[in-house]
Amino acid sequence: MTIRIAVAGATGYAGGEILRLLLAHPAVQDGRAELGTLSAGRNAGSLLVEHQPQLVPLHDRVLAETDRETLAGHDVVFLALPHGQSGPVAEELGPDVLVVDCGADFRLEQAADWKRFYGTEHAGTWPYGLPELPGARDLLRGAKRVAVPGCFPTVSTLALYPALAAGLAHPEVVIIAATGTSGAGKSLKPNLLGSEVMGNASAYGVGGTHRHTPEIAQNLGKAASEQVKVSFTPILVPMSRGILATCTAPAEPGVTLTELRAAYEKAYADEPFVTLLPEGRWPQTAAVLGSNSVHLQIALDREADRIVVVGAVDNLAKGTGGGAVQCMNLALGLPETAGLSTVGVAP
Amino acid sequence: MTIRIAVAGATGYAGGEILRLLLAHPAVQDGRAELGTLSAGRNAGSLLVEHQPQLVPLHDRVLAETDRETLAGHDVVFLALPHGQSGPVAEELGPDVLVVDCGADFRLEQAADWKRFYGTEHAGTWPYGLPELPGARDLLRGAKRVAVPGCFPTVSTLALYPALAAGLAHPEVVIIAATGTSGAGKSLKPNLLGSEVMGNASAYGVGGTHRHTPEIAQNLGKAASEQVKVSFTPILVPMSRGILATCTAPAEPGVTLTELRAAYEKAYADEPFVTLLPEGRWPQTAAVLGSNSVHLQIALDREADRIVVVGAVDNLAKGTGGGAVQCMNLALGLPETAGLSTVGVAP
Amino acid sequence: MTIRIAVAGATGYAGGEILRLLLAHPAVQDGRAELGTLSAGRNAGSLLVEHQPQLVPLHDRVLAETDRETLAGHDVVFLALPHGQSGPVAEELGPDVLVVDCGADFRLEQAADWKRFYGTEHAGTWPYGLPELPGARDLLRGAKRVAVPGCFPTVSTLALYPALAAGLAHPEVVIIAATGTSGAGKSLKPNLLGSEVMGNASAYGVGGTHRHTPEIAQNLGKAASEQVKVSFTPILVPMSRGILATCTAPAEPGVTLTELRAAYEKAYADEPFVTLLPEGRWPQTAAVLGSNSVHLQIALDREADRIVVVGAVDNLAKGTGGGAVQCMNLALGLPETAGLSTVGVAP
Amino acid sequence: MTIRIAVAGATGYAGGEILRLLLAHPAVQDGRAELGTLSAGRNAGSLLVEHQPQLVPLHDRVLAETDRETLAGHDVVFLALPHGQSGPVAEELGPDVLVVDCGADFRLEQAADWKRFYGTEHAGTWPYGLPELPGARDLLRGAKRVAVPGCFPTVSTLALYPALAAGLAHPEVVIIAATGTSGAGKSLKPNLLGSEVMGNASAYGVGGTHRHTPEIAQNLGKAASEQVKVSFTPILVPMSRGILATCTAPAEPGVTLTELRAAYEKAYADEPFVTLLPEGRWPQTAAVLGSNSVHLQIALDREADRIVVVGAVDNLAKGTGGGAVQCMNLALGLPETAGLSTVGVAP
Repeated sequence: MTIRIAVAGATGYAGGEILRLLLAHPAVQDGRAELGTLSAGRNAGSLLVEHQPQLVPLHDRVLAETDRETLAGHDVVFLALPHGQSGPVAEELGPDVLVVDCGADFRLEQAADWKRFYGTEHAGTWPYGLPELPGARDLLRGAKRVAVPGCFPTVSTLALYPALAAGLAHPEVVIIAATGTSGAGKSLKPNLLGSEVMGNASAYGVGGTHRHTPEIAQNLGKAASEQVKVSFTPILVPMSRGILATCTAPAEPGVTLTELRAAYEKAYADEPFVTLLPEGRWPQTAAVLGSNSVHLQIALDREADRIVVVGAVDNLAKGTGGGAVQCMNLALGLPETAGLSTVGVAP
Repeated sequence: MTIRIAVAGATGYAGGEILRLLLAHPAVQDGRAELGTLSAGRNAGSLLVEHQPQLVPLHDRVLAETDRETLAGHDVVFLALPHGQSGPVAEELGPDVLVVDCGADFRLEQAADWKRFYGTEHAGTWPYGLPELPGARDLLRGAKRVAVPGCFPTVSTLALYPALAAGLAHPEVVIIAATGTSGAGKSLKPNLLGSEVMGNASAYGVGGTHRHTPEIAQNLGKAASEQVKVSFTPILVPMSRGILATCTAPAEPGVTLTELRAAYEKAYADEPFVTLLPEGRWPQTAAVLGSNSVHLQIALDREADRIVVVGAVDNLAKGTGGGAVQCMNLALGLPETAGLSTVGVAP
Repeated sequence: MTIRIAVAGATGYAGGEILRLLLAHPAVQDGRAELGTLSAGRNAGSLLVEHQPQLVPLHDRVLAETDRETLAGHDVVFLALPHGQSGPVAEELGPDVLVVDCGADFRLEQAADWKRFYGTEHAGTWPYGLPELPGARDLLRGAKRVAVPGCFPTVSTLALYPALAAGLAHPEVVIIAATGTSGAGKSLKPNLLGSEVMGNASAYGVGGTHRHTPEIAQNLGKAASEQVKVSFTPILVPMSRGILATCTAPAEPGVTLTELRAAYEKAYADEPFVTLLPEGRWPQTAAVLGSNSVHLQIALDREADRIVVVGAVDNLAKGTGGGAVQCMNLALGLPETAGLSTVGVAP
Repeated sequence: MTIRIAVAGATGYAGGEILRLLLAHPAVQDGRAELGTLSAGRNAGSLLVEHQPQLVPLHDRVLAETDRETLAGHDVVFLALPHGQSGPVAEELGPDVLVVDCGADFRLEQAADWKRFYGTEHAGTWPYGLPELPGARDLLRGAKRVAVPGCFPTVSTLALYPALAAGLAHPEVVIIAATGTSGAGKSLKPNLLGSEVMGNASAYGVGGTHRHTPEIAQNLGKAASEQVKVSFTPILVPMSRGILATCTAPAEPGVTLTELRAAYEKAYADEPFVTLLPEGRWPQTAAVLGSNSVHLQIALDREADRIVVVGAVDNLAKGTGGGAVQCMNLALGLPETAGLSTVGVAP
């Protein structure tokens, strides 16, 4: 029986990326799965390709409204909606439907965190879709609800988890992440215009105010088994896609680079999508563009007594849409890597 | 029996793209084909991923020399070498080996054209790897030698062929093509440094001096069944990949847009990789990035009495590496579209 | 007595550039002139630097409404308003005020051209602010009304005028101009978002539909002393500023490159802002960024029998704000080059 | 008597920027100063504008060798040479010549630091050209030797000095600085090619290995009056110019944002080139492009107990060439701001 897949929020960057990946997915290509409803908000009624000109194979698809009726009758529903909108939509979907949410609604475990950063009532907490974390795959296999991590938390967590879990880093971390503009979505804000962002690097959400901060702290707290102080600053740089996160923490006394590398190699030895680069090579976002890969590298700065881990991810791929498809694969019992490349489109 | 594939020139942008595409090719993924020798020039002996950090699955591959011995024992050899070097290498390869050349060596039919633009003796002429041209597929099916077209000729030819073939355009064409920098390869020239190209548009090869000019004229001459005057100017713009070619010619008297669209629709109706966009939408390179698609759109300017066709292509994908894989598919009798996407990695 | 200068439309890119240039203008620096009202539309009441963070010396300036009262009492008023809005505002300004309009309202001589491309009633025709054209300076010296040329017409006209005026080029021209995104202003359109324009080249206004087409034809018609067929296509490329225009026309029989160069050298010998580059060097937009310079180079393509002239300009500087200040200098009897650099901010 | 100025290393990015600024300098414009020798290394004998096409007013200047003879007879010599080359050249210049060195040779006070990061013998220590530091102007006025700070140290020092000097920040700082590619100069390295840097963010010099680290530590140590642990990581982002430095340190107990802002306002109240932005606005590099401005903003993150200061600078302007001209002004007794703009070329 064919798996029917819907994508709510198909005009946005996350929705477009999910569709790009699904079109190349073996289950869709061989007919085991098919794309059903593609829905939008105010653009319902228009052609998908007016908003996603790259999705040529879907050139005749018209966007539906995002509602109970249009999303009914599907086995999988991806939600790629503005933060806060997934909760109400998800309530309308039956318990047997696999719902993969790319928004923040169901990521946080503390209602107070949600309230503080989003200002509304918390919708709840779903299994957290970062399969590379200890124990995560068990929860995701066969799951019917998945909260896909945010793009910054994905790379920051993978970059710092092994060091904190192994007690090699002191739990006061500083993360400064250069990001492409697609992470901000298609909102029509003057500071996101091409004329403003090209040739320009700018800061925003400084001082712990970015909404991904509590999610990072939640993940790293589990790694360290204690509360972790997180100083997180995103930087907007002139590219569409990609995050390069520089993540640093004080080294615990006596830590060696050998120990550090061993901790990361052990943590990610069997992970298809996380690569600790050989010594001497540093991550770059172009090498993971369009792919589901995360590239990591570690330095131990003995003068400053700090560990520095740099991680690269494509915010739309592994950072959102690719992570979502990886979770779908796990939840449906498909091979976890199906339809997901580890090779970036470089240069 | 497994098809063994070698890539000569694996450190360059064309070689890297061929490998990216082959890694995702179903024949490689299911073991019907495998990657053998990956060779280089002065970088022989080093790890491939030092030059192509995106090719994670090939992280342990060491580059061989490009010579008779290393290329022996393969069923398919891709040549992604500097212009003029394919001739000698190809001579060493047996007649049963499929040789797909991404260089210019075997594209031109007139030895005088080669001599004039390259200054050396002409190596010969091979079947021309643009399957979308009339009659081309017949020559490419089962071929053992294929000359992959240049990136500018690919998009320019597809953009102007139907109008010229249908007698709707006068054979004096002007083509001005904005190109990303990867078309210039990895040559270490000051004008290709990031600091020079970012925030900058520049002209080069103006006045018919670009080496792709005779190849374009050769193709369009076949379309028009007469000599075509070609004024071709490439423009370097601040992006890595992509060509946007604006191709214009005087309209023959009385031509209508309806006739024009009909000619293109007829020419490309069954083509999987060429799309005439619906009226009102214009090509953009991001929509074809990393894909094998060419997007076209036509205008008829009644004030200027000219036809204007705009085409977008990824110079490394359909413009080189993707075109090469498409030709391999045809030559080996595989499905023509195997391993080739029509969906660009946008935004 | 101090010259009081107002800028209407101070939040836009043209307005910001005019202010940048005026702050560095010797007359402002030594107190002979001063900045009075800076006005805006819906942003009236907010701080200028919220919209123009680069204008640090004006950090305490609040934006006024654009109306009769706020613009009263000035000797010079720059209008940097959306097309069609300058007419009504200008009517309110007395005949002794120097009004320099950066919009299209007063550029065209034929009311029918305005009607066709803008759809409303034509406001009139003012002296055309391209001092480099024959006879233009005489009209601009002491003028009280100046229509600053459009950015594309500035570079296209300077690129083709000498060849047409000398009868060296046939009056059927093709102009394809790669432009940065700032030419489109700060309009909040999805296709102008950074995520859309970076890594992307796209076409728009193809087929003679761009509003600068009749202005180019008007200028070139004067050069040729007959009607000129103009095929103009703008291309959007990933940079904020700069236009690189490739302008081509059939060469008249027997024309030589020597003749061509002589025509341009003669035309621009005494021009401070127009440079015909030495043979072998080609224009690039970075070399004129932020400056009032136009760089030109010519090729004669004997195979295609065409002249190709490439021109580079900063669309906001010489293409708008710099051209406006140059006209102000002429109109006020100041040195024409005052406050205007010929040196681009490169790289 | 005319001040004669030479620039050694006129083909590089720093040399080009110094010349751009000098051409607009009032002393050069009114003839009190003039440009003498412009010298180069292997490009001696060629035209300056072949390497610096933006320097139109110097179009007939031929590059001299960099040696004792060519640099003789000048009152001011700017050295814009590769690190380690200024020492030998400076030795040849008389004690009455003002020598402004843009290299690292004379910045460090500890010979051991030089040895460790550059591997050769230390040339010595000159007055440090950051006039905004306490006491620095006294040393720079009338100085005959000036060591211009590095670009990263300029912005990092200005960003953290007041907080450390006022005892508001704990002396363990983390600095992560996104930089344009021009900071790496014109070296022909594959990773600096446009195709590699566009659409890409990458890390380099991680773990305290970047050569600017000891210079930053030296400056901040003076601020804190004790040794400061500095963790410094530069990030390469896709733009030509600009540095956005995110600088963070633990807040000392009880520190308030009001105290912090007061410390910065006091430190920079009379500084023409350093601006603490109003609350709510964050630095961006475009706003300072081509200018001598540094923009700063501060956050106090109470969850992480950290101070975060973000600073923006143009690495070639205030970060090198502009800083050099500012120092020349001071040393010659000219107005400190002569020829230096505070207005960036945005967008």
